[in-house]
Amino acid sequence: MEDTAQMKNRPAAPDLLERLARIVGDKHLVTGGDKLRPYTEELRGRYHSECRAVALPAHSAQVAAVVECCAAAGVSIVPQGGNTGTMGGAVAHAGQVILNLARMNRVLEVDPVNYAMRVEAGCILANVQAAAAAHGRFFPLSLGAQGSCQIGGNLATNAGGINVLRYGNTRDLVLGLEAVLADGRIWDGLNSLRKNNTGYDLKNLLVGSEGTLGIITAATLKLFPAPLCRVVALAGLADAAAALALLGRLRDASSDRLSTFELMSDIAVQSAVKHIAGQTDPLRGRHRWYALIVADSTNQEGGDGGQSALRGEMEAGLARAMDDGVLQDAVIADSESQARRLVLLRENIVEAQQFEGGSIKHDVSVPVASVPEFIRRTHAAIKKAMPHARPYPYGHMGDGNIHFNISQPPDMDRQAFLDQWRPMNRLVHEIAHQLGGSFSAEHGVGITKLEEMKRYKDPVSLALYRRIKRALDPGDVLNPGKLNP
Amino acid sequence: MEDTAQMKNRPAAPDLLERLARIVGDKHLVTGGDKLRPYTEELRGRYHSECRAVALPAHSAQVAAVVECCAAAGVSIVPQGGNTGTMGGAVAHAGQVILNLARMNRVLEVDPVNYAMRVEAGCILANVQAAAAAHGRFFPLSLGAQGSCQIGGNLATNAGGINVLRYGNTRDLVLGLEAVLADGRIWDGLNSLRKNNTGYDLKNLLVGSEGTLGIITAATLKLFPAPLCRVVALAGLADAAAALALLGRLRDASSDRLSTFELMSDIAVQSAVKHIAGQTDPLRGRHRWYALIVADSTNQEGGDGGQSALRGEMEAGLARAMDDGVLQDAVIADSESQARRLVLLRENIVEAQQFEGGSIKHDVSVPVASVPEFIRRTHAAIKKAMPHARPYPYGHMGDGNIHFNISQPPDMDRQAFLDQWRPMNRLVHEIAHQLGGSFSAEHGVGITKLEEMKRYKDPVSLALYRRIKRALDPGDVLNPGKLNP
Repeated sequence: MEDTAQMKNRPAAPDLLERLARIVGDKHLVTGGDKLRPYTEELRGRYHSECRAVALPAHSAQVAAVVECCAAAGVSIVPQGGNTGTMGGAVAHAGQVILNLARMNRVLEVDPVNYAMRVEAGCILANVQAAAAAHGRFFPLSLGAQGSCQIGGNLATNAGGINVLRYGNTRDLVLGLEAVLADGRIWDGLNSLRKNNTGYDLKNLLVGSEGTLGIITAATLKLFPAPLCRVVALAGLADAAAALALLGRLRDASSDRLSTFELMSDIAVQSAVKHIAGQTDPLRGRHRWYALIVADSTNQEGGDGGQSALRGEMEAGLARAMDDGVLQDAVIADSESQARRLVLLRENIVEAQQFEGGSIKHDVSVPVASVPEFIRRTHAAIKKAMPHARPYPYGHMGDGNIHFNISQPPDMDRQAFLDQWRPMNRLVHEIAHQLGGSFSAEHGVGITKLEEMKRYKDPVSLALYRRIKRALDPGDVLNPGKLNP
Repeated sequence: MEDTAQMKNRPAAPDLLERLARIVGDKHLVTGGDKLRPYTEELRGRYHSECRAVALPAHSAQVAAVVECCAAAGVSIVPQGGNTGTMGGAVAHAGQVILNLARMNRVLEVDPVNYAMRVEAGCILANVQAAAAAHGRFFPLSLGAQGSCQIGGNLATNAGGINVLRYGNTRDLVLGLEAVLADGRIWDGLNSLRKNNTGYDLKNLLVGSEGTLGIITAATLKLFPAPLCRVVALAGLADAAAALALLGRLRDASSDRLSTFELMSDIAVQSAVKHIAGQTDPLRGRHRWYALIVADSTNQEGGDGGQSALRGEMEAGLARAMDDGVLQDAVIADSESQARRLVLLRENIVEAQQFEGGSIKHDVSVPVASVPEFIRRTHAAIKKAMPHARPYPYGHMGDGNIHFNISQPPDMDRQAFLDQWRPMNRLVHEIAHQLGGSFSAEHGVGITKLEEMKRYKDPVSLALYRRIKRALDPGDVLNPGKLNP
């Protein structure tokens, strides 16, 4: 708060920016120049934002005041976290104010006995993970952008990642929320209860709403016993059907302790070997498909964190799958450093794809049991539409979430290929839709997939979304034009 | 459908009951007499319903037609499942139509590879469990009324039960829903996807909404590997703090494979021993508190379903807890029949309480770490308010959900005691509230807890509930007067 003297010197009806500066402090209202860039430019360079200003509030009451102020001025707000989303959900236009949560980055409490922690929305995901680990607990959300994405953004988009098979999506990892509503009121749902049946589920309504119904300002997150050991394996497989069979066998064999089951195509693995320094193929022969499998244990008895017991289970499960012809080859990491190298292969295939030229990307899901059919049909359809295109599929098999990316034909112009983005999307989304799947498994809608919303969502769902949006944000103050087509 | 000749004989503007009979068939519209009783009387005899009629539709289109028809006539509907709820959520008044889902009781599909099944809302919970088991899969929702409650009712109330610690509440066990909305449209969200970020979470909005936003007609449920063995233990403890410590130790020791951790007070255990034929105290000495602990394993390797490994972990964890003074005594079941007897003790303490005279019941939750303080404070407050009352607490310690029931003083008139229901509720709910807890952990609101809603829910939440209700059911057709005060 400023002192009275200063306020007297200001005009009686200060403009919006002055009012915002009074709320967050001059230093924390960015209105122009290079300082805008972290908020208006995204890493990929696909979208570019304009805006009146970026407001960086320090706490929920400031968020509420910013919202109230903008609503009164008829100016809409784009809530923003780490600006790492890929669907343009945090992109603004010239008339809007970007409200970035970066300054609200405190871990408020870690309660290991209650297996819970409270954090402000601007906490970087990696810091959330580290704070839990420092108390002997585990926060399982893990994804590529974790070094820069904010937990508030993860919540607003219901982020997925590599541990969904065992621990669920972000919405499954949250006990309570605090959010600022479109009229500037603060909703306090920041409890840490495991059971609470007293009213509609506002928490899940806000999670995944991409900042269109409220601005999440804090959350109580669910924690788990910290894994003391993990068993990491890589399997070579003839086809996706074999991967599906292996998934079921290992869920059973490990007492359902698989946290990760990632499918990778041959082209993806070979691309990583070719382009990423130090990456080798851990299996001897080549295989059409590879599965990266992680199981973990928290067993504190026996001195090895349950390593030998879990490893025994996984070895037996893999050996039996080999005997039954389900898999062609497999290796289990002998040490944690070898385990890290196996896990790195999965990360490297994402990076390696950049070296293969232009890439048309997908984030679809189908029922887990339909993954083999989805892959077969999509592969054939792409090859038919563009014979030299190179399908580069990989993804979270355990959740039915395949990133069925397509690398450009070597003989094709990059831009000419990328111009086929929309028809290729259509082709892939159409097959996913026919199999009861989704055109956006974990990345959300933003502005990128509004057209798909119109095409694939049923009219009843769309009508309900509109009604809910109108009920909670009648003035269209919060992130208008996102998610709802 | 009737033939045209029949329809011609009817008056041009038939009254509501005629129209409903045309939709569901004469046989399936109950309008009077003893046949009404299963729908208008509840087991406990606490509430009695009146109604115009009970409609028993055969499929979703009939549900939709009934809703449309009633909405047009300005008549509201009470959706009803097995009529086992304890909060009066399925109670109707004379002007209303009860819509019971009992005829929609088909298991539509069990897909073990996708770990999913589709069911109609009227399926009895025990039949859902059995259908999953027949395919080598596990549907974990388990509660006292499972032989008669319907899965649609479980979904509408977000039922809890004894496996929440590991598998979550009902909302965590559902992948997709179909529901009929207040205007008679059918919302088809019956997918079986693990990841799908395309719009607001209508599924979780409907789950737990107690039939006030839509009538759930079908669901896709999440399945798990079938446990092949379980290790069941009973521990004797000095206080609830020791139980809390034991919970954390055994979560760690068992690699987080505890499905059940139930706390029982001495009075509850002794009451079961006294009143239930064949019930003995499995521990030698008496203890102020008992914990029933179940861990399960799905390990298919080694021939014993992982029994020996899991048992070893649990034995080691319990032995270490004993050495460290956390517990006073413990027994692990040596056979499945002994395991069943231990589990039965928990069920028997519920039945046994009836023999202790009148009981004032509670269904509160607090953060798990606050359970000891909650119990200590509540016990003291009850003893202060009514020195001879006998607190009879037990509950789902793993979820912080304690049924802090109170048995009448032996020297008090039953009715005089029960007349203290509301002040005693207030006392217990007040302490739970102070500890960040809930006055309804798993039973919902219905009509019984409307007053608590007004008292304990914050005005912002209540305002949001009203807005959502108005957005989805502007004519107040669906279960008016329930959940929303």
